[in-house]
Amino acid sequence: MTERSARVSSARKLTRRAGRERAGMFLAEGANAVLEALAPHTPESGVSPQSGVREVLVTAEGLRRVPEVAERCAASGVPLWTVTERAAAALSETVTPQGVIAVCELPRTDPQAVLAPRPSLVVVLLDIADPGNAGTVLRVADAAGAGAVLFAGETVDPYNGKAVRASTGSLFHLPLARERDTDAVLAECRRAGLLLVGAAGEADSDLHTAEEEGRLDVPTAWVFGSEAHGLGEYGQRLDTTLRVPIYGRAESLNLATAAAVCLYASARRVRRGPE
Amino acid sequence: MTERSARVSSARKLTRRAGRERAGMFLAEGANAVLEALAPHTPESGVSPQSGVREVLVTAEGLRRVPEVAERCAASGVPLWTVTERAAAALSETVTPQGVIAVCELPRTDPQAVLAPRPSLVVVLLDIADPGNAGTVLRVADAAGAGAVLFAGETVDPYNGKAVRASTGSLFHLPLARERDTDAVLAECRRAGLLLVGAAGEADSDLHTAEEEGRLDVPTAWVFGSEAHGLGEYGQRLDTTLRVPIYGRAESLNLATAAAVCLYASARRVRRGPE
Repeated sequence: MTERSARVSSARKLTRRAGRERAGMFLAEGANAVLEALAPHTPESGVSPQSGVREVLVTAEGLRRVPEVAERCAASGVPLWTVTERAAAALSETVTPQGVIAVCELPRTDPQAVLAPRPSLVVVLLDIADPGNAGTVLRVADAAGAGAVLFAGETVDPYNGKAVRASTGSLFHLPLARERDTDAVLAECRRAGLLLVGAAGEADSDLHTAEEEGRLDVPTAWVFGSEAHGLGEYGQRLDTTLRVPIYGRAESLNLATAAAVCLYASARRVRRGPE
Repeated sequence: MTERSARVSSARKLTRRAGRERAGMFLAEGANAVLEALAPHTPESGVSPQSGVREVLVTAEGLRRVPEVAERCAASGVPLWTVTERAAAALSETVTPQGVIAVCELPRTDPQAVLAPRPSLVVVLLDIADPGNAGTVLRVADAAGAGAVLFAGETVDPYNGKAVRASTGSLFHLPLARERDTDAVLAECRRAGLLLVGAAGEADSDLHTAEEEGRLDVPTAWVFGSEAHGLGEYGQRLDTTLRVPIYGRAESLNLATAAAVCLYASARRVRRGPE
């Protein structure tokens, strides 16, 4: 199947947000992401984070390198199409395409639905612009055991190719929801019994003190603001804001490393509960 | 001054490692890095991390956007040369050059020298391949209050343009040393009284348990291995290895986020000391 085939042309439209919205599908590229998409899921939460896989497109070389793709497609009844290297390159956003691409259904979830199982650790991304950052925080949220990730305001599309790749499969591990109305997202978090905690470099309280005082021993939604402007006006609408202490002379941490420190602090406390 | 001038040609050679080694200089690009390079330093450690700035090259637009560069050059007696946009582009590794570049002296430091003040938190990077990762970990090390960062084995050159940029000035905040002989680096750490702790996804012990048991309450050198192969054979030569616990279904964290969780765990314990 070449890059001029109808199937590849349709898939190519999914490299753009408008095309994804219209078709209700997105592309997951690379062996890890595709195998995760095809993996059998039994989510604890009851809300399936899994996107159904419509079909898999693979080059001869991709098939040779990752034979498990064919096995999983066969086991789950997903159609597998072989495509030329040029077709794979047309669908890829990487310099060196891996030749393994899954066409997945966009999950239609809203904040209320993903918060219904009452997760005790939630991440809210607010106006995050960089898809690599969004995907990396998704991976950190997964590692720290978060039960949902909410993409609020003007945050980049989590189904953008770069975000999917940076999430290294975590996109398929936990429920996400998108909602442009940030106030609605915060209201849903409150209704779900979550303390709203914002990460802010200029906050008066620091993370480690809050942790030691037991203020993170409750179900928490961590809110991370944009790379350029932080939480902006939303900082004041949260229950509290905390800063990651800077012990040296760096001005700040980047988004993903700050999120890692914050989410791991909460993960440990939420698991342990009040002392 | 155009891209064909002798000064710009010389500076351009510093975009490659061989050129940097030969000239004993490197380039720091962008307003933040250049202002940090020109900032007055009073390191607590007694080992100056600061690279002397030989000269600054700036475009008319760069000068307009960052007038502090001219002020700091004047205050410190550093020559300032205006260059064309094309000259700045020739020296830049970014798509959108900022037009502000400092030519800095490569510090000639070895592990023994940077460990002489007996820092209580040290980072060892072992065979790290990606310059963005190296620079980001440098930034995290600075934020967590590390007293030195050692680049061991085949780790990427910290004076690579991408690494300098990712460090967002932290390169100028704390002493670094490079040493290809990894065994020599580990031996120096031991001599400096540091516990050698490796981060390894497959380790038996986890970070939070070690922290709660007080095993991180001592001066520690954290060793991070390569993105592809981890610590390899060196894992067994350390005092212990620890894994960052994975509470969800992610396979792992990336290097920078794992380093953030590990270094902040140590930073807090080392500051607090045994209870």
